[in-house]
Amino acid sequence: METSCENSSVNGESPERLALYARLDKVASAPLWAVMSQLVTPEPRPRCVPHKWDYDAMRKLLLEAGELITAKEAERRVLVLENPGIRGMAQITQSLYAGLQMILPGEIAPSHRHAASALRLVIEGTGGYTSVSGERIPMAPGDFILTPSWTFHDHGNVGHEPVIWLDGLDVPIVNLFDASFAEAYPSGDVQKVERTAGDAVARYGMNLHPVEYVPTGSSSPVFHYQYSRVKEALGQVALGGAIDACHGFKLQYTNPTTGGYPMPTMGAFIQELPSGFAGRAYRSTDASVYCVREGQGSTSINGEVIEWSEGDVFVVPSWSITSHWTTGKSVLFSFSDRPAQKALGLWREIRFDD
Amino acid sequence: METSCENSSVNGESPERLALYARLDKVASAPLWAVMSQLVTPEPRPRCVPHKWDYDAMRKLLLEAGELITAKEAERRVLVLENPGIRGMAQITQSLYAGLQMILPGEIAPSHRHAASALRLVIEGTGGYTSVSGERIPMAPGDFILTPSWTFHDHGNVGHEPVIWLDGLDVPIVNLFDASFAEAYPSGDVQKVERTAGDAVARYGMNLHPVEYVPTGSSSPVFHYQYSRVKEALGQVALGGAIDACHGFKLQYTNPTTGGYPMPTMGAFIQELPSGFAGRAYRSTDASVYCVREGQGSTSINGEVIEWSEGDVFVVPSWSITSHWTTGKSVLFSFSDRPAQKALGLWREIRFDD
Amino acid sequence: METSCENSSVNGESPERLALYARLDKVASAPLWAVMSQLVTPEPRPRCVPHKWDYDAMRKLLLEAGELITAKEAERRVLVLENPGIRGMAQITQSLYAGLQMILPGEIAPSHRHAASALRLVIEGTGGYTSVSGERIPMAPGDFILTPSWTFHDHGNVGHEPVIWLDGLDVPIVNLFDASFAEAYPSGDVQKVERTAGDAVARYGMNLHPVEYVPTGSSSPVFHYQYSRVKEALGQVALGGAIDACHGFKLQYTNPTTGGYPMPTMGAFIQELPSGFAGRAYRSTDASVYCVREGQGSTSINGEVIEWSEGDVFVVPSWSITSHWTTGKSVLFSFSDRPAQKALGLWREIRFDD
Amino acid sequence: METSCENSSVNGESPERLALYARLDKVASAPLWAVMSQLVTPEPRPRCVPHKWDYDAMRKLLLEAGELITAKEAERRVLVLENPGIRGMAQITQSLYAGLQMILPGEIAPSHRHAASALRLVIEGTGGYTSVSGERIPMAPGDFILTPSWTFHDHGNVGHEPVIWLDGLDVPIVNLFDASFAEAYPSGDVQKVERTAGDAVARYGMNLHPVEYVPTGSSSPVFHYQYSRVKEALGQVALGGAIDACHGFKLQYTNPTTGGYPMPTMGAFIQELPSGFAGRAYRSTDASVYCVREGQGSTSINGEVIEWSEGDVFVVPSWSITSHWTTGKSVLFSFSDRPAQKALGLWREIRFDD
Repeated sequence: METSCENSSVNGESPERLALYARLDKVASAPLWAVMSQLVTPEPRPRCVPHKWDYDAMRKLLLEAGELITAKEAERRVLVLENPGIRGMAQITQSLYAGLQMILPGEIAPSHRHAASALRLVIEGTGGYTSVSGERIPMAPGDFILTPSWTFHDHGNVGHEPVIWLDGLDVPIVNLFDASFAEAYPSGDVQKVERTAGDAVARYGMNLHPVEYVPTGSSSPVFHYQYSRVKEALGQVALGGAIDACHGFKLQYTNPTTGGYPMPTMGAFIQELPSGFAGRAYRSTDASVYCVREGQGSTSINGEVIEWSEGDVFVVPSWSITSHWTTGKSVLFSFSDRPAQKALGLWREIRFDD
Repeated sequence: METSCENSSVNGESPERLALYARLDKVASAPLWAVMSQLVTPEPRPRCVPHKWDYDAMRKLLLEAGELITAKEAERRVLVLENPGIRGMAQITQSLYAGLQMILPGEIAPSHRHAASALRLVIEGTGGYTSVSGERIPMAPGDFILTPSWTFHDHGNVGHEPVIWLDGLDVPIVNLFDASFAEAYPSGDVQKVERTAGDAVARYGMNLHPVEYVPTGSSSPVFHYQYSRVKEALGQVALGGAIDACHGFKLQYTNPTTGGYPMPTMGAFIQELPSGFAGRAYRSTDASVYCVREGQGSTSINGEVIEWSEGDVFVVPSWSITSHWTTGKSVLFSFSDRPAQKALGLWREIRFDD
Repeated sequence: METSCENSSVNGESPERLALYARLDKVASAPLWAVMSQLVTPEPRPRCVPHKWDYDAMRKLLLEAGELITAKEAERRVLVLENPGIRGMAQITQSLYAGLQMILPGEIAPSHRHAASALRLVIEGTGGYTSVSGERIPMAPGDFILTPSWTFHDHGNVGHEPVIWLDGLDVPIVNLFDASFAEAYPSGDVQKVERTAGDAVARYGMNLHPVEYVPTGSSSPVFHYQYSRVKEALGQVALGGAIDACHGFKLQYTNPTTGGYPMPTMGAFIQELPSGFAGRAYRSTDASVYCVREGQGSTSINGEVIEWSEGDVFVVPSWSITSHWTTGKSVLFSFSDRPAQKALGLWREIRFDD
Repeated sequence: METSCENSSVNGESPERLALYARLDKVASAPLWAVMSQLVTPEPRPRCVPHKWDYDAMRKLLLEAGELITAKEAERRVLVLENPGIRGMAQITQSLYAGLQMILPGEIAPSHRHAASALRLVIEGTGGYTSVSGERIPMAPGDFILTPSWTFHDHGNVGHEPVIWLDGLDVPIVNLFDASFAEAYPSGDVQKVERTAGDAVARYGMNLHPVEYVPTGSSSPVFHYQYSRVKEALGQVALGGAIDACHGFKLQYTNPTTGGYPMPTMGAFIQELPSGFAGRAYRSTDASVYCVREGQGSTSINGEVIEWSEGDVFVVPSWSITSHWTTGKSVLFSFSDRPAQKALGLWREIRFDD
């Protein structure tokens, strides 16, 4: 769609038609029939490609960046992960942004907010925190943290080692709709802490909520999904039930006040794959960004095999036939635009497990 | 409405009208104008009255019952708490049933299911369990447990002391709609245990759920709300936020897959009142059944004062002006038909806290 | 449930148990095991019975009532249709009220409102009107009209003949929940007309609604379902599609701003049965009140056959096995508490058409 | 976001940083801080511009196209309206496609379906039809017609004059999510007609629907919104209520089975502006495509004034301050991506009418 139609329309067109096309061009119009097959394809034809970002390599570059620019100077010290199929767009998939962010001991990433929703998966380091809507959340490896649309958020590191996490944002979606808003926190770099850590989880995340509470919007009021709890759930589920041939033991993070996805544009998932898992193939229209939380294995994406181990990030384009193998017990975190696709009636999936 | 209209219509009616009424009576009809003021009242006029069941007295009677009838013989060994305003109806309010159930060491209450939904609050004893939908849930004091409509459930006691809990059911609602169904478990007294304890909480109750899970019905797939977790939440909430002038720190139990009430007909609540709390008055159309979980205090209901301490059950009729006082830090559990009233567009509340 | 348990519990009980029961009785409690089988039945056991009210007979009685009492004096001149199985309760089913209301030329039934929701099906007469929420709706035979919970409504007759309609109200439901409220219009008998007739249909009922309109509550803002339009729809549907073996061509009235039922407690239906229709059997848990709009036929209800013709009202109790036969092309209007049962997770149906 | 970041990052960066950026570039990554201000803007900065397509001019070009290419050869004979700010993209706004389609007497546009949803507003001509899901809908000027996602649709003209309409599609949205699917009708150019015209409106669009119907998906089962009915509604609404200072009398097309928008990605609106209307300013994040149905006037868009008369199409970019003036009574049709923005939590509006 983003390739212009001029070249294709020249081929085999009559001079009369070309003259018409020229007149159309002058009044900001164009012949649909010359471009229709590119606009409306029989199946998804993503320009994105499968790709893996090796964690060790990226970590080294992050540390280098740490010496060259402060978190505050950068506002956010992040290495954008750009899909090789669409370089220069700051997109890991057609609809999503991803990056690796680092904050060093003593640093602050100043408070701001934006229409774009963000999610984080902590990869390494203790002592970091994210403040969201007046609550300061301590970050531990494996923790999943939200900063929903238009919530003030800032990050800091009160520990003694670098803290690194994966960011996911819906910036390309927000920009498709020309609906971007952003502003800095009005008074200083660090927002005021108004509630004790754990307050939101206690209020909304323990199968209770305040009497007569009514959700506003569809983003979760729970911002923090501790990995220790997630592991406990995965362990129980693996004990109790049948394994899925494609997905292993796979759960999705939820907004407990609606039962829906944590945010309206992005869903996130966690799956445990036992050692020696040889998954059946699967495809869906939501391109997915994976981050290896534990273990090692490989993933076949339309026949291309990506080997992965802890910390690696890899991307599966839309509608790619995908299967996972493991050489040790593994835990994969992933996120995608699935909630948006479902809300808009676009999501499809196919299992190849029969 | 349940009083017949004959007497009232005689008074002051002309002979012609009385003759018409007699003819109407023969064709199964009646003059609305003679009964309208009883059918449609300007405000709720509950026949239910405020009442307290003293736990010590009831416990003694339960133990006596334990000697006279087995749980299995009784199917359920329960003392129905009958509202003194409507005796003989097995109702604690116009729309709800409540009872105190006891199960002795070694006993079994056989598995069955019914259209009526049930909830339990464990009052005392360890070693009890309730099995619901293939999962055996251990019961500890303070635990809140669901057996949603049409789920098989049985109870047992593998410990060494009596286990006593409060039951709440929506039987009068089900019967108003003539929608009662019930059946015994097809094979034996005890249903087959198919999942480890904690399975449902792990799958649905930890801000995660199985990938692409879609709720069926509006009852919670989480059956078990452990009091230890509830206390943790109450403690956090009391730390972090402003106290409500009427309700103290009050939370409601939720269905985490919808954000709604645990079951479509009954809601349940837990509130912590600090020592010396002098609550402002409040009224709502949902009559409420309270069970004192911790502490002691008193509740004024339309001016009538009920003194309560641990284990006591008391009932607040619809639209009664209600306020709570405490002499020690207290925790009150309560349940009502609020979800039904809200679904049907009937619920109202008024706060008197300004 | 409303029969007391004393008699049954005497039979075969030991003196010790009887002594216990007496002590229980003193503290407002009762043994569940003595009444459980009456409270929780394996299937619905409605006390309501099938019954028909012959329109000609009832019409004659209404006209007699017209001579003995004014609409204004009566507030509403209505003959309540009392189910013969539960006389003295002003109920046509366990959960619903029905009546035949008449308003004579020049009369006014004063404006009031109540928590109870009401629906009307106009049976005969022109010149009547119902005003709802500031709009005066002209009533024509076959029209279906709502007065949702807490909307002011008054009736009048500016024509030259009696106007008669069937009323349906959810009074028993409201009273089960002890949630009745009512009040007279504050200034005079007739509410102020603020919008032209047809305003609500134009705003909400023509597959359009005001820009950014958000429904408040679940009752329909469309109050008037003109029979001329309903007939047009039935005609089209009968042209275009397969007939249902149980129901003929059956549609339900909807709230076009939600797609749901017109009111949260009562649903209404219209079905065209061709001449010679011999319907297959069907049962559902919602007891239904039928009013014959056109034609003649008979309905078998648990084997009991009711013959009906235009204007007749008949009732089908919950869970009764029901089938319709016609001797001429017929149109049946009906209403029930189905929305309430579905909202509360209680509704069941069975078709016997295979 | 679509401009690459290279140029901007060179300016003022140290050699060390530039060396780092080069190393990042090799591993498919980039420094966020160099592009962040372009990705996340304080307010929407649409590349789209306001623009009008003059109907007379476009109509002439369409007729020329009619001589050079058949509808069947073209599959669809459409002149794409390309926003001058983003030429070569086949987009009228960042997220929507629009085009003018013509079908000549005797022509057929073959049946196909695609994941993209489409809407049409008929501008001129009688004798045209669109078939959707087995129903052949006659097209009259002003009619609004849907072909929801994945419904087979074909067009034809059985009349004696050209039929021209405006198409709106969500192709850029579908392509952002890499979720495009399309296929031709399996057997021939014209789908089988299975239901009489008006069937869907009778079943779902007259404040009735089939008994126990449950919507599948969020697209409307009503495909056809006849202009004659829309005019009737507008006339009533203009009679009865206060005029909106920004929007005149504005209604939105609805899905009567949900109360929502007709399709999940696109909303459509119709507004009547009286003669001499001088509207107050308004802005919203959904860029809007207008088609003048009746009358003449002008619209100020961020200070740029567009004069319009019947048949003209003009576009208002996201977040533009907009106000309408009329010189005669006018009716404006419009559509936008508002449902998608609302579903994703992105939509904002501001009125300047106080």
